[in-house]
Amino acid sequence: MGSLEAERTTVGWAARDPSGVLSPYTYPLRDTGPDDVYIKVHYCGLCHSDLHQIKNDLGMSNYPMVPGHEVVGEVLEVGSNVTRFKVGEIVGAGLLVGCCKTCSACESDVENYCSKKIWSYNDVYVDGRPTQGGFAETMIVEQKFVVKIPEGMEPEQVAPLLCAGVTVYSPLAHFGLKKSGLRGGILGLGGVGHMGVKIAKALGHHITVISSSDKKKKEALEDLGADSYLVSSDSSSMQEAADSLDYIIDTVPVGHPLEPYLSLLKLDGKLILMGVINTPLQFVSPMVMLGRKSITGSFIGSMKETEEMLQFWKEKGLSSMIEIVNMDYINTAVERLEKNDVRYRFVVDVKGSKLDQ
Amino acid sequence: MGSLEAERTTVGWAARDPSGVLSPYTYPLRDTGPDDVYIKVHYCGLCHSDLHQIKNDLGMSNYPMVPGHEVVGEVLEVGSNVTRFKVGEIVGAGLLVGCCKTCSACESDVENYCSKKIWSYNDVYVDGRPTQGGFAETMIVEQKFVVKIPEGMEPEQVAPLLCAGVTVYSPLAHFGLKKSGLRGGILGLGGVGHMGVKIAKALGHHITVISSSDKKKKEALEDLGADSYLVSSDSSSMQEAADSLDYIIDTVPVGHPLEPYLSLLKLDGKLILMGVINTPLQFVSPMVMLGRKSITGSFIGSMKETEEMLQFWKEKGLSSMIEIVNMDYINTAVERLEKNDVRYRFVVDVKGSKLDQ
Repeated sequence: MGSLEAERTTVGWAARDPSGVLSPYTYPLRDTGPDDVYIKVHYCGLCHSDLHQIKNDLGMSNYPMVPGHEVVGEVLEVGSNVTRFKVGEIVGAGLLVGCCKTCSACESDVENYCSKKIWSYNDVYVDGRPTQGGFAETMIVEQKFVVKIPEGMEPEQVAPLLCAGVTVYSPLAHFGLKKSGLRGGILGLGGVGHMGVKIAKALGHHITVISSSDKKKKEALEDLGADSYLVSSDSSSMQEAADSLDYIIDTVPVGHPLEPYLSLLKLDGKLILMGVINTPLQFVSPMVMLGRKSITGSFIGSMKETEEMLQFWKEKGLSSMIEIVNMDYINTAVERLEKNDVRYRFVVDVKGSKLDQ
Repeated sequence: MGSLEAERTTVGWAARDPSGVLSPYTYPLRDTGPDDVYIKVHYCGLCHSDLHQIKNDLGMSNYPMVPGHEVVGEVLEVGSNVTRFKVGEIVGAGLLVGCCKTCSACESDVENYCSKKIWSYNDVYVDGRPTQGGFAETMIVEQKFVVKIPEGMEPEQVAPLLCAGVTVYSPLAHFGLKKSGLRGGILGLGGVGHMGVKIAKALGHHITVISSSDKKKKEALEDLGADSYLVSSDSSSMQEAADSLDYIIDTVPVGHPLEPYLSLLKLDGKLILMGVINTPLQFVSPMVMLGRKSITGSFIGSMKETEEMLQFWKEKGLSSMIEIVNMDYINTAVERLEKNDVRYRFVVDVKGSKLDQ
């Protein structure tokens, strides 16, 4: 793979403008550097944040943009310094592909909080090229950001764990919420929320799903195994549930009032925000002070936590609920995800799709 | 003290209406019950929350109202079950005089979070009578809410510790912020803020006072021993100080933006709200998520923490900065406190004042 050879390319599906419509796009891929892993993508999940990016909701999008950051694939080639991965192994990659390695976050193995982190797409890599994501035939990822998939796990099942899964696992681990017997709330039952129910139930928690309507009640209780279901507009049920939860994982990705949920928390309860929301959230200070409550949040998880979470998932024998589609369905999937019409994650069978047409 | 005797009375200074003007007021005091301590007030501090109460800022004031909840006095009489206190001892009382004793907060010795707590004034006691505070000749307080003042401490110095002092000590203790070497911020340099600087410096922290102007710079650095001073409107200094603090104790008692201060916090930093503010505070979720920061707060402290804090204060040989006044100055003190014109706490010499004129 020397520099004299013709430049390597790959084909992915890219958004070309804020319409967010994805279509085939061929682009160069760097050679496999000493620390790189060259991956053939098998599956890639579709996350709500992909929608924000392809549609330029945050005003920071660059096109063409190949989204996708819940990637499971097979190692095609490894660089000379790579010892943790071998050709043919099944591996995963997530939302990040780079960090500074010298800041206190990097030194504490929480590189996801490095201020110089590099996103797996819609960012610029150290070589000056745009990064492109997992809705593509192949990817090159630095070994630090590649995770081994434990044997026996089904790759399509694993894809949503690499963002949604670790996103809920990380705060439960970090904020001391892994002990059994806790009472938790999951606000919003989308891709991240359904992972929240699965993981929290596996930890032995009593779980209340909180939603704006009763539409998802049956599935929350019967399919996902939640213990209780609360409709946030039902003020008498909300009142009854006051001061009852140790934590709430708030997955709502749009502006919403915080006070109704702060009220549900016990003394020292935590409201953990998972949704990137650029309109201001509001609360009055006595709502936190009088119960020593916290409003906090976290951002995906570290590579270390990702490994830990995969192990946990395997040990507990969990499964995610996904809808597998081919790449030619991706634009419909985007439309359906916008309407929350998916149970609970689209996973694109990239390997089984024809990407160049 | 049998029921056949004439009812006992005391004289305090009460607000009669939302003008908040205090004047002498004579009212009945219950007999010393088995668990009660009858206290002759020596000193009582004037706290910003007293202003809210006497002026009905929270819309919950009942008149006549004798404010004051930073009380140091001498035991005149104890009930038959009281073994911890003896006649003649110097004791303190704070913001609370009752709790349910059976809820999980009470059982965990954080009765300050009991939902049935009884405030030392502007509340109704278990006997149905209004509670009245410490700007009075005497008080009756249940022993659970009385604290022993360690020998050798000057009573006028102790008064502000019983609310302002424990209010900042409690979150530092609870949130794991007592270890030395931390970098803390104190936002707002009033009664609580000055206690914050004193206590945090005694813990071995590097302390930055953050204020809206440079008016208090000299006193913060020279008189209180802060390490650094930051003017919140100076955007370049604020920028330089980004990601530098482990915590901020936010004592501002009126609405203010949170984002400039969230920016100052490091990964896992905590913004600890101390001000009861009934206008909504705002932030955008990435400000907490991308650094796993917390917005939290606490409410005074428990009796146990109050004892611990008094011991800490004595061991470290700290002193509060107070302005001692007589009761006939109280209405002027209220006016000056409203303009933050006090360094840093008014303490009324109740024992040395003529209360009935």
